[in-house]
Amino acid sequence: MSELRKDPILGRWIIISTERSKRPSDFDETHSEKSENGFCPFDHGNEDKTPHEILAIRKDGSLPDRPGWSLRVVPNKFPALKIEGDLNREGNGMYDKMSGIGAHEVIIETSEHSRIMSAFPIQTMKDVLWTYRERIRDLKRDRRFKYILIFKNHGAAAGASLEHTHSQLIALPIIPITVEEELHGSKDYYEYKERCIFCDMIRQEIAEKERLVTQNVDFIAFTPYASRFPFETWLLPRRHFSHYETASDDMLESLANIFLEVIGKLDRALDHPSFNFILHTSPLTSDQIDYYHWHFEIIPVLTKVAGFEWGTGFFINPTSPEQAASYLREIS
Amino acid sequence: MSELRKDPILGRWIIISTERSKRPSDFDETHSEKSENGFCPFDHGNEDKTPHEILAIRKDGSLPDRPGWSLRVVPNKFPALKIEGDLNREGNGMYDKMSGIGAHEVIIETSEHSRIMSAFPIQTMKDVLWTYRERIRDLKRDRRFKYILIFKNHGAAAGASLEHTHSQLIALPIIPITVEEELHGSKDYYEYKERCIFCDMIRQEIAEKERLVTQNVDFIAFTPYASRFPFETWLLPRRHFSHYETASDDMLESLANIFLEVIGKLDRALDHPSFNFILHTSPLTSDQIDYYHWHFEIIPVLTKVAGFEWGTGFFINPTSPEQAASYLREIS
Repeated sequence: MSELRKDPILGRWIIISTERSKRPSDFDETHSEKSENGFCPFDHGNEDKTPHEILAIRKDGSLPDRPGWSLRVVPNKFPALKIEGDLNREGNGMYDKMSGIGAHEVIIETSEHSRIMSAFPIQTMKDVLWTYRERIRDLKRDRRFKYILIFKNHGAAAGASLEHTHSQLIALPIIPITVEEELHGSKDYYEYKERCIFCDMIRQEIAEKERLVTQNVDFIAFTPYASRFPFETWLLPRRHFSHYETASDDMLESLANIFLEVIGKLDRALDHPSFNFILHTSPLTSDQIDYYHWHFEIIPVLTKVAGFEWGTGFFINPTSPEQAASYLREIS
Repeated sequence: MSELRKDPILGRWIIISTERSKRPSDFDETHSEKSENGFCPFDHGNEDKTPHEILAIRKDGSLPDRPGWSLRVVPNKFPALKIEGDLNREGNGMYDKMSGIGAHEVIIETSEHSRIMSAFPIQTMKDVLWTYRERIRDLKRDRRFKYILIFKNHGAAAGASLEHTHSQLIALPIIPITVEEELHGSKDYYEYKERCIFCDMIRQEIAEKERLVTQNVDFIAFTPYASRFPFETWLLPRRHFSHYETASDDMLESLANIFLEVIGKLDRALDHPSFNFILHTSPLTSDQIDYYHWHFEIIPVLTKVAGFEWGTGFFINPTSPEQAASYLREIS
């Protein structure tokens, strides 16, 4: 059983994962992205090599855990957190821990082993975004969960352990600290200005254009003013929405379009970089809120940074967001 | 001129570094650790290839910027921040920026190109730790600076751009957010318990022994209860001190001993890993404080993590600190 432990100084929770327990000699393997002997558990025909599917987009009449799918959601075989059990909190002297309850799912975005996201047809991207919404809607009914993290690691440098394109979902009994801080910061702004800080950013980015990457009728993509990373790009709905799971099918179609456009631009500008993206959305425990605005943050992995940045929260970005946006705008 | 920009949501400052400005095609080079044609500007005899030295440990009678040294401190040739100029704050619509005033120095820890820290003689390590203290004492007199970051990147995976062993110092006109949060968290604890949280951790770690790596009369090394990274190890003075620059020569000798012991253990347990260490000390602006306790955090770079962790503040650690400490204790 994994354990959630609280940092007594920063109040941040950490997962100590026993399912994935690693001894000193195990760390070499972490860097490998290839499956053993070219075998991939996410390929079409290997459905019995994953845990039972939770959701799939399938041809009519095809059976669960059998061929005939174009997208599958399965539990992570080596989950950081497990869904069974009760949520027990206890102390250990001055320290606090909690049992590692949660869900850890893998979204296998396509059955085609070598298809990368920038080469997805629009329907595939729409299916991926639809799946994120459906999984949040479903997991929201489990009252033990307070937050759902959805993210994608693409490429070995971004932490992907399997080459076959996939995203991950982690449902948590706590709200991650950076989410808490974002909520707190945007609430402070709202109390002072009586406006959503993200809506204000959107207005300024559209007016100034310098950091604008692209936009369509529903969404905007820009490089944030205080970008931590070169070519960091944010994708936001232009109108105010706090919870991703409220997005309509039409909105998701519009999002799929701009998402593929942005990933394609990054791919061409930076020669197929490894990247991460993370959905930032409101906690499950809140209703529609006026001060928070869901968005995706896309981060190409271009610089090798490590403990220093984590230890300080201090980032040195060698490419200004204005330069980055200008490069990205030039790419058609 | 570099620019400090404030994240309007998180209140975190970022450096946009124009001295190091990178275009899309420049990012391949970042990963190279070798100097061009085997040339190293930090080697003995190449003193004229760095900016003028600020401090050096030299044989009696040898001249500045000439051979005869065993340790040199020089300004970073491509500084993230520059020391000249005034500190101007200004707005840009809803955003805030500040001119990038600061110092960025390199501590060349030895003149021997291939000597790594784990193979330092005790005197070399003592000289390094003494130099950190002297540079803080000197820069503290410049009232524009609020905080000094001292850190080391060892190995390409940890972000070292030159192989020759060195540490870095950045003097900042702001306090980095993680430092602010640590100060805030430990102050809250102090107000509640009327005890230093770090002193309490030391007492519990000595009593429980499970996470203890090693100790001597002045210092303790342990793997923290909520370790973010496998084999993350902290080094703290056993008695309460808030500011590193107050350490006596005797303390630094004791620290040099335990530091080399811990780095040596990590080196042997993990087969010469890349690592970062960061000095966490109190801001320059405060006098001795009861609630904060200076320490070093040492982080081997074993897992590939990226934007996800930065985006969420959420870490999954595959090796419990109890296991890590047990491996490290076994190594003599």
